Amino acid sequence: MRVGVLGSGIVGRTIAGKVASLDHEVVLGTRDVRLTTERPAGPNDAESFADWHGANAAVIVAPYAEAASHGEIVVHATNGAGALEALARAGQDNLDDKILVDVSNPLDFSAGFPPTLAVSNTDSLGEQIQRTFPRTRVVKTLNTVQAAVMVDPASVGGGDHHVFVSGDDQGAKDRVAELLRDWFGWRNVIDLGDITTSRGVEMYLPLWVRVMSAINTPVFNIKIAR
Amino acid sequence: MRVGVLGSGIVGRTIAGKVASLDHEVVLGTRDVRLTTERPAGPNDAESFADWHGANAAVIVAPYAEAASHGEIVVHATNGAGALEALARAGQDNLDDKILVDVSNPLDFSAGFPPTLAVSNTDSLGEQIQRTFPRTRVVKTLNTVQAAVMVDPASVGGGDHHVFVSGDDQGAKDRVAELLRDWFGWRNVIDLGDITTSRGVEMYLPLWVRVMSAINTPVFNIKIAR
Repeated sequence: MRVGVLGSGIVGRTIAGKVASLDHEVVLGTRDVRLTTERPAGPNDAESFADWHGANAAVIVAPYAEAASHGEIVVHATNGAGALEALARAGQDNLDDKILVDVSNPLDFSAGFPPTLAVSNTDSLGEQIQRTFPRTRVVKTLNTVQAAVMVDPASVGGGDHHVFVSGDDQGAKDRVAELLRDWFGWRNVIDLGDITTSRGVEMYLPLWVRVMSAINTPVFNIKIAR
Repeated sequence: MRVGVLGSGIVGRTIAGKVASLDHEVVLGTRDVRLTTERPAGPNDAESFADWHGANAAVIVAPYAEAASHGEIVVHATNGAGALEALARAGQDNLDDKILVDVSNPLDFSAGFPPTLAVSNTDSLGEQIQRTFPRTRVVKTLNTVQAAVMVDPASVGGGDHHVFVSGDDQGAKDRVAELLRDWFGWRNVIDLGDITTSRGVEMYLPLWVRVMSAINTPVFNIKIAR
């Protein structure tokens, strides 16, 4: 199928590369293609974009709008700070009636580490996106794990842990749960309810960040033990 | 040892009853002893206070200040909304130099269910308590699970899940981790760091509430899978 991935950081690259490796037609969208393709390795990117693209040559790199237009399904993987601007560039017409898989977090690093949330408690980034694009079927998921774990849950605890879906459209959530299983191998998906439940998974991030520091690795996830 | 438990709701009752059953001298503190002892069963209390006290007669019921004065260690288990007022009634002199185990959450139900948080993101109830009582050694813990799970972790997933401690005093955190093991059987305690990490465990509550709704039980906890 045709998949658009918005965002050229580690999350967008990881998802785009994995989905393309499954023989789907993937376009990775970015604000400025030239700047992205020239981006060196940095603190958040283990390798330069060129090195990553060399190893993932099947992924086409294009402006946001082209990636959104291309996708039968679109994954939103920008850093949360520029999310609404990136989605505006992707274009409402290119997102109408489509499933938008939102894996982003509204992390605010303006005061350093640990980050705070730019929106929380009585609202969430997932809700903001759904309100801004009312004809798009937004499904929040995967934001509770690091990029490498998103596409390879079996790498953590034998895959015995949970991921969540939040959204107003039941069909869209069910479809995303199927894709999480078929693309990445997620076996345990909990449907939290409507898009307001994005608050829960986004407000978990401050705990995620502290656990990461305490156990010295971002490669973990939570299992709901009963 | 002598233990003070502040709060006469389900959390305070559950902790006081369990600790008293281990032959510690427990005083449960409340704002108004007569009102508390006359309290009927209600939506949050499965039984009347009198019925609970009949089954836990070793627990002495007294005003907040008397419970705090009695305790070598004090557990704060009021509902978060009245936390600072309850602790003011307990009295700074009665809390100085002691370990205060804060198991509360700043849940705000004023707009109904699900609750929001009265403080979050750039501050937390744990921090507010520590700032208000600078000579008290505040340790935040157990707020991530329901009362019954607090005192019986083995009842969930064979005990294979995690609880956290947050606080500025390492000795106090180590002592609380020992008590969690000895009193209740907690085997897996993660030290998240200083009291600012209370933000993480308190901001997890909106996810906890949604998971509870999704799986139809409050009897669960998270395991950090690696």
